[in-house]
Amino acid sequence: MALSTPLTIQLTPQAEIAADVPVDLERTRQPQYGRYLDELEPGQVFEHPRGFTFERATMLDFARNFMQANPLYLNLQYATAQGFRDLPASPQMVFNVTLSLGVQNDSEKAIANLGYYQVQFLRPVYAGDTLRAFTKVLERKDRGPDKPGIARIRTVGINQDDQVVLQYERKIMVAWRGDRLPTTPAPAVTTAFPGAENPAVELPLAAGPFAAGLTGPNTYAEDFSPGDIIVHANGRTITEEHMALTYGVGNSHPLHFDRIFSSGLAGKMSGEPIVYGGLVFAWLDGLASRDVSEHALWELGFTEGYHTQPAFAGDTVGALSRILAVEAAPGAADYAVVTMQLIGVKNISAAAALERYGADLFIKEDAKRDLGKEKIPAKIFEIERRLLIRRRPG
Amino acid sequence: MALSTPLTIQLTPQAEIAADVPVDLERTRQPQYGRYLDELEPGQVFEHPRGFTFERATMLDFARNFMQANPLYLNLQYATAQGFRDLPASPQMVFNVTLSLGVQNDSEKAIANLGYYQVQFLRPVYAGDTLRAFTKVLERKDRGPDKPGIARIRTVGINQDDQVVLQYERKIMVAWRGDRLPTTPAPAVTTAFPGAENPAVELPLAAGPFAAGLTGPNTYAEDFSPGDIIVHANGRTITEEHMALTYGVGNSHPLHFDRIFSSGLAGKMSGEPIVYGGLVFAWLDGLASRDVSEHALWELGFTEGYHTQPAFAGDTVGALSRILAVEAAPGAADYAVVTMQLIGVKNISAAAALERYGADLFIKEDAKRDLGKEKIPAKIFEIERRLLIRRRPG
Amino acid sequence: MALSTPLTIQLTPQAEIAADVPVDLERTRQPQYGRYLDELEPGQVFEHPRGFTFERATMLDFARNFMQANPLYLNLQYATAQGFRDLPASPQMVFNVTLSLGVQNDSEKAIANLGYYQVQFLRPVYAGDTLRAFTKVLERKDRGPDKPGIARIRTVGINQDDQVVLQYERKIMVAWRGDRLPTTPAPAVTTAFPGAENPAVELPLAAGPFAAGLTGPNTYAEDFSPGDIIVHANGRTITEEHMALTYGVGNSHPLHFDRIFSSGLAGKMSGEPIVYGGLVFAWLDGLASRDVSEHALWELGFTEGYHTQPAFAGDTVGALSRILAVEAAPGAADYAVVTMQLIGVKNISAAAALERYGADLFIKEDAKRDLGKEKIPAKIFEIERRLLIRRRPG
Repeated sequence: MALSTPLTIQLTPQAEIAADVPVDLERTRQPQYGRYLDELEPGQVFEHPRGFTFERATMLDFARNFMQANPLYLNLQYATAQGFRDLPASPQMVFNVTLSLGVQNDSEKAIANLGYYQVQFLRPVYAGDTLRAFTKVLERKDRGPDKPGIARIRTVGINQDDQVVLQYERKIMVAWRGDRLPTTPAPAVTTAFPGAENPAVELPLAAGPFAAGLTGPNTYAEDFSPGDIIVHANGRTITEEHMALTYGVGNSHPLHFDRIFSSGLAGKMSGEPIVYGGLVFAWLDGLASRDVSEHALWELGFTEGYHTQPAFAGDTVGALSRILAVEAAPGAADYAVVTMQLIGVKNISAAAALERYGADLFIKEDAKRDLGKEKIPAKIFEIERRLLIRRRPG
Repeated sequence: MALSTPLTIQLTPQAEIAADVPVDLERTRQPQYGRYLDELEPGQVFEHPRGFTFERATMLDFARNFMQANPLYLNLQYATAQGFRDLPASPQMVFNVTLSLGVQNDSEKAIANLGYYQVQFLRPVYAGDTLRAFTKVLERKDRGPDKPGIARIRTVGINQDDQVVLQYERKIMVAWRGDRLPTTPAPAVTTAFPGAENPAVELPLAAGPFAAGLTGPNTYAEDFSPGDIIVHANGRTITEEHMALTYGVGNSHPLHFDRIFSSGLAGKMSGEPIVYGGLVFAWLDGLASRDVSEHALWELGFTEGYHTQPAFAGDTVGALSRILAVEAAPGAADYAVVTMQLIGVKNISAAAALERYGADLFIKEDAKRDLGKEKIPAKIFEIERRLLIRRRPG
Repeated sequence: MALSTPLTIQLTPQAEIAADVPVDLERTRQPQYGRYLDELEPGQVFEHPRGFTFERATMLDFARNFMQANPLYLNLQYATAQGFRDLPASPQMVFNVTLSLGVQNDSEKAIANLGYYQVQFLRPVYAGDTLRAFTKVLERKDRGPDKPGIARIRTVGINQDDQVVLQYERKIMVAWRGDRLPTTPAPAVTTAFPGAENPAVELPLAAGPFAAGLTGPNTYAEDFSPGDIIVHANGRTITEEHMALTYGVGNSHPLHFDRIFSSGLAGKMSGEPIVYGGLVFAWLDGLASRDVSEHALWELGFTEGYHTQPAFAGDTVGALSRILAVEAAPGAADYAVVTMQLIGVKNISAAAALERYGADLFIKEDAKRDLGKEKIPAKIFEIERRLLIRRRPG
């Protein structure tokens, strides 16, 4: 193959030929993506298609659309004053993109995303970076031939230099194939499954306070104590925009943008396209951000994240946070590690939800039956987050 | 603080801890943003949060979405041929962003934006620039304890080099706090309030005509005479996109994107989220642009701008312009200063509105009672604009 | 004219003057764009306004929103590994933009876009490139004074270096002006009509396989044989987003975004704004892409493209492909030229449409009457495409 000579293709007039090629319906194929339960084997590895190149404009648009208040993701001058070499992508964008890259292999046939676990961000993503992702099937839990099973999978996102930027686990509910068409095989994976054994993140240390007014005066680490409940004032009405945003992050599950598909489903998923959960999480995070994460230098991780009810176009979502722990950050006296719950509600303001449901809002929905409590239909999301938050400057 | 050693944070598995932290509802706080009338004091200064970094893709997207026809904001080759060092952001984007940066301090509790005055653009905004904004409270007009009052405020937008890019005044209607929660204090402002005493703008002088077909042949300064009325042919149906666009420019007032908030209001604002006025103005400006501002080199300013009716998703807006003055541009023989009215209507075409309402369309709505005239319910906006417009080449 | 001295304009307070300028309705003008049939003359040339600068973020957003699966348009690292000097714009974006640039002159008064013919892509478009377009009227077919006529036009898109990037013909249906207002004359065209006599495209030859998992294992040239029918699994529900997307590519026809205009029309176009056909085509192409064009290095062309039914917000579109020919690519042993039909349906899944309509789906709608067949109301689009597709690596 000659590497140095470009290929010149003559563009000739294109004659119409369809009528000359007889239609033979026997020659039909219907490629299917994702995996049924029978097609997922523990140990199996997928290298996900396409990849995703980040651009600063897209990163800024994402941060703004999801209502981020941390200037680190909105303001290049602020980001570089903090010591970053460029504006970093918001963790929510990195998470949404990495998860979406895996959908075509992992979960395009999944019935539900059951949970996010041990989500860890290892490295900033900057403009010009290209992410790819790999998934390993960790476990497959059968619940009998008549019921969908549960797969536990691990996904790792890497950049163009093969450095890990994100890793996490999730559980998905997947049906048996039954008599449906088999799915398209993924290409054989020829490289080792990536991942960090002792994950760590290297962060810049800020040179000091910067244009004080760009952040609020009462969202430093000292302003948070375990037990604090913070009700975030504004909600966000989700519109049909969610369909384009789903594909905007690369998620190919038709449940989120194909009304023919979603209305053809049986049971409680039937009807309008369901908002991709990653987008819901991103909005809740953004709604909370000016009260809890304006001074976050890094999102250390999420775990035990559950979408307890679906959201649809037209729903208005609101958020509450509860501080769970404030701990020293080893080696970084100017920062603290703050752990908090993020709770999402819909079609009720966060303040009204707290008044109506009280302490029960902060109890995991899955734990409620054992506690003799009712699930809360207005509650749509719960997760625990851990952030590195600046202390109030000297 | 060691500046040169990056901070390495070990990412350890995250244990679930919410169940171990008792929920104490007494520990709840509900941060509120914006200001009630009692919280606004003449002389008070706010430095607005976050800032906004401009990217060329976002600038182009904004110009296109709001239907700009001036190639200066759409075509890099044209912009640099005019002598600009890069593609400038459209004035509407600069205005929308600067105003929105101030909402969290100024007007997130405002009931209505009453008017724009003395809007002046002092400097181009290019890709990579980061804007911040400051507001000073100029005046507070009480109308008694039972009525909302009126605050007059001055806002200045500056770039990353502290150069003023935009300044303007607006009046907002704000209610007394009453028994509502107080709002979150803004950080103390430590820098002087920016602003230009003798504002001027430095503009490139074009090298001459460029690819003639990129603009029309009959929108040069000579084509406008005082009294000309121009009916702009197309309208634009505003969709629910307006909610995302509101946050896209950084505006945090829930009236525009939180249906729970907007449907909970009393009176004529109750119901669906109202389109943020800056977006309405941007669409009207765009709809007018191919007829009046294709050859504008600079938007010199706006004044007496009023949103006389709200717009909602589903409304179709249309625009008319009326030329008020055509004057020499001192020191710039190739240009003229053209002053015009821009009028917006909704749910009627601009041509039909002119037929139905005639000359009354161009009378300020607020002046109508004194003139014994009825307000026009289909009219949504009025403003006076002043532009620097090229004369027909040689 | 002094080129080197910038112009300094003093910004003085702006006094309100509208009330001092009497309103004279006789001074009204109503600029109209596009052309009526009487205004189109064979041989006539238009240089289209504005131009369009491409940015990488916008190119990536377009490719993602229209669901492209070919990493060439999504992944910078992949694109450069294929030998391109940067990420190229997707052909659908180049086509949509070029066509839209011409609407203000060519078709803003057109009743319908009848067909696309001999669409040829001659050169990649990269970030920073600015496209302009020219149109020549080739033919005008009158069908009597009471009926709209048909114009055949040729459009050529060129970049900032005057190199042709795209050329095509289309037929549009246009009404006689009758007693309507005449349209605004286009500026005289002073340059020669561009175009390539012996069109050819220079392409890089890939250095070899790259991160195998970024594309699927069964979409190489060898995987396609004439007669293959491929049913694409997912559909896409089009939302009101289409109005913003229309202006996003620069299309100014009010039929697509002005409900007052579209509901004022008579006949079957009356009602909701119709989705701009270029967008429909782009979605269908994207829905098909992971099954047929993941390994395409170049879109060689389209012809005989027809929008056989309009689409509206709320419609869900689906796609099928049928392989028509697989031929050697002269001088490029590692590639083949694959010709295929792309068929679009709406409000039925592609699989269900094939089951219901069978072979008739692949027959041109216009040929059906002669064949004694019924038109298919669920079918919205048909075209023949020719792609350069990689063979399976050794």
